[in-house]
Amino acid sequence: MMNSVAIDFSAWAQAKQRHIEEVLDTVLPSTQTSPQKLHSAMRYSALGGGKRVRALLCFAASELCQTETSFTDAAACAVELIHAYSLVHDDMPCMDDDDLRRGKPSCHKQYDDATALLVGDALQSLAFDVLSQPQLTKQASQQVSMLSILAKASGSSGMAGGQAIDLESVGKVLTQTELENMHSLKTGALIQAAVLLGAMDGSELEIIAVKKYAACIGLAFQVVDDILDVEADTSTLGKTAGKDADSNKPTYVSILGLAQAKQHAQQLYSDAVAALTPFGEKAKRLRELADFIMQRSF
Amino acid sequence: MMNSVAIDFSAWAQAKQRHIEEVLDTVLPSTQTSPQKLHSAMRYSALGGGKRVRALLCFAASELCQTETSFTDAAACAVELIHAYSLVHDDMPCMDDDDLRRGKPSCHKQYDDATALLVGDALQSLAFDVLSQPQLTKQASQQVSMLSILAKASGSSGMAGGQAIDLESVGKVLTQTELENMHSLKTGALIQAAVLLGAMDGSELEIIAVKKYAACIGLAFQVVDDILDVEADTSTLGKTAGKDADSNKPTYVSILGLAQAKQHAQQLYSDAVAALTPFGEKAKRLRELADFIMQRSF
Repeated sequence: MMNSVAIDFSAWAQAKQRHIEEVLDTVLPSTQTSPQKLHSAMRYSALGGGKRVRALLCFAASELCQTETSFTDAAACAVELIHAYSLVHDDMPCMDDDDLRRGKPSCHKQYDDATALLVGDALQSLAFDVLSQPQLTKQASQQVSMLSILAKASGSSGMAGGQAIDLESVGKVLTQTELENMHSLKTGALIQAAVLLGAMDGSELEIIAVKKYAACIGLAFQVVDDILDVEADTSTLGKTAGKDADSNKPTYVSILGLAQAKQHAQQLYSDAVAALTPFGEKAKRLRELADFIMQRSF
Repeated sequence: MMNSVAIDFSAWAQAKQRHIEEVLDTVLPSTQTSPQKLHSAMRYSALGGGKRVRALLCFAASELCQTETSFTDAAACAVELIHAYSLVHDDMPCMDDDDLRRGKPSCHKQYDDATALLVGDALQSLAFDVLSQPQLTKQASQQVSMLSILAKASGSSGMAGGQAIDLESVGKVLTQTELENMHSLKTGALIQAAVLLGAMDGSELEIIAVKKYAACIGLAFQVVDDILDVEADTSTLGKTAGKDADSNKPTYVSILGLAQAKQHAQQLYSDAVAALTPFGEKAKRLRELADFIMQRSF
């Protein structure tokens, strides 16, 4: 049975998930607007799915740092758009070649490869469009910094770079350090950006703390993902299970073994939560999100 | 024999081409930095080629409007990075499937499809990274507006949208209006962005004029491209000639016929140059660039 804390968090998360869905729905061009097929495929890929972990992290950091709501909405939306674009491109035949995403045909299966390519491209542009709306914050220079954070997190020293290392590492034996470097770019960079954008109005101490939190929880997220890939079945995951092992990709489980991978996730979780200690109740949602990320698997 | 005006322009253009090459070289990550293959492929795709028409338009508009040099450099660089990314994705097998670009193997031929996909993605991020550098201008709010212009020009209501319409129009008969709409997005949007970014510090009158200039010259550029596709050979073009006709794509030549297409380009050129009349000598480079764009073919 869920306790009252869990019920409270669950209600908060659901409200935020509904909210970000509405924001995305508003921001994505209508299927009535030309080019209709592209817009339809963009909406197909960015709406109606996922736990919206990155948006939740952005909202939670915003609650800690009391960041302006209009900015937080745009930031959460931008981060989810970057994430959605990366999934669309990731699933393409020349990358992971995955037919299933969030329990539905992936974008290139539902539409076609060329459309999927353009969907990813246009979702990336849209993320920067959303975050460069005029007067999103009182401080335009802050907005420029946030755009810079998102751009760096997405590019070759962030998410795209992590993807490239991932591609090169297929069939190779990586050390734990190499694996962590790959994941800190591939998934960690965008998770860190989500938290930092949410923390825009935070104090220096708060920002140092959320950076530490984000680095740990970003890695924990990936360790849990690797465990899920081994332990869960395809219908629970909403994507093809056992995929990483099948494609001979190094994972935390393949390097550390299952038991030690779980222990490692637990350590990262503890470190993430410890970084929040000075902020007590204000950091409640970030703490609960750390729990949420861990509970995806065990 | 070239006259002194042409020599003067040619020297200016060459100096600017060298300059933007240097700026791009500085901005693109080193091939020594991990992930090395991705960075090598990004440099392969973005350096050492092309007439840099978009950068030249940006510099020329900057000369008219006396825009800050540091901002103009970043803007020209960002626009060239977006252009380079679009070429890499365009050439991929699921799009135009072109093996040749600027006289060299296209990115996916030189590397592989997955790398080309990531190269395009990362070049797009890098464009926004470059334009969101701190303190690029005295007015951060202006910088936010410029980021917004670049994002909109790149996305589904700009370049990516034009690509999507292009894909859908293969084998279809388009009206001239439909064709113009496609091209005003596919190539026009980024050309307009290049000019507007260069004109950042311009007066209201100057900005209205360069918008008109950019709209006309953007379309003229495409008409000339269509004419070149028919008239030039592959070695002159540095890309596969006759490609559009072969792939049954509607072009200005297929819709208007060669003679009328040339006449249409001439009219667009005249309209572009007419918009610059009030600014005399200050608009010299923009005027010369209009000539340059026209002289690519006849």
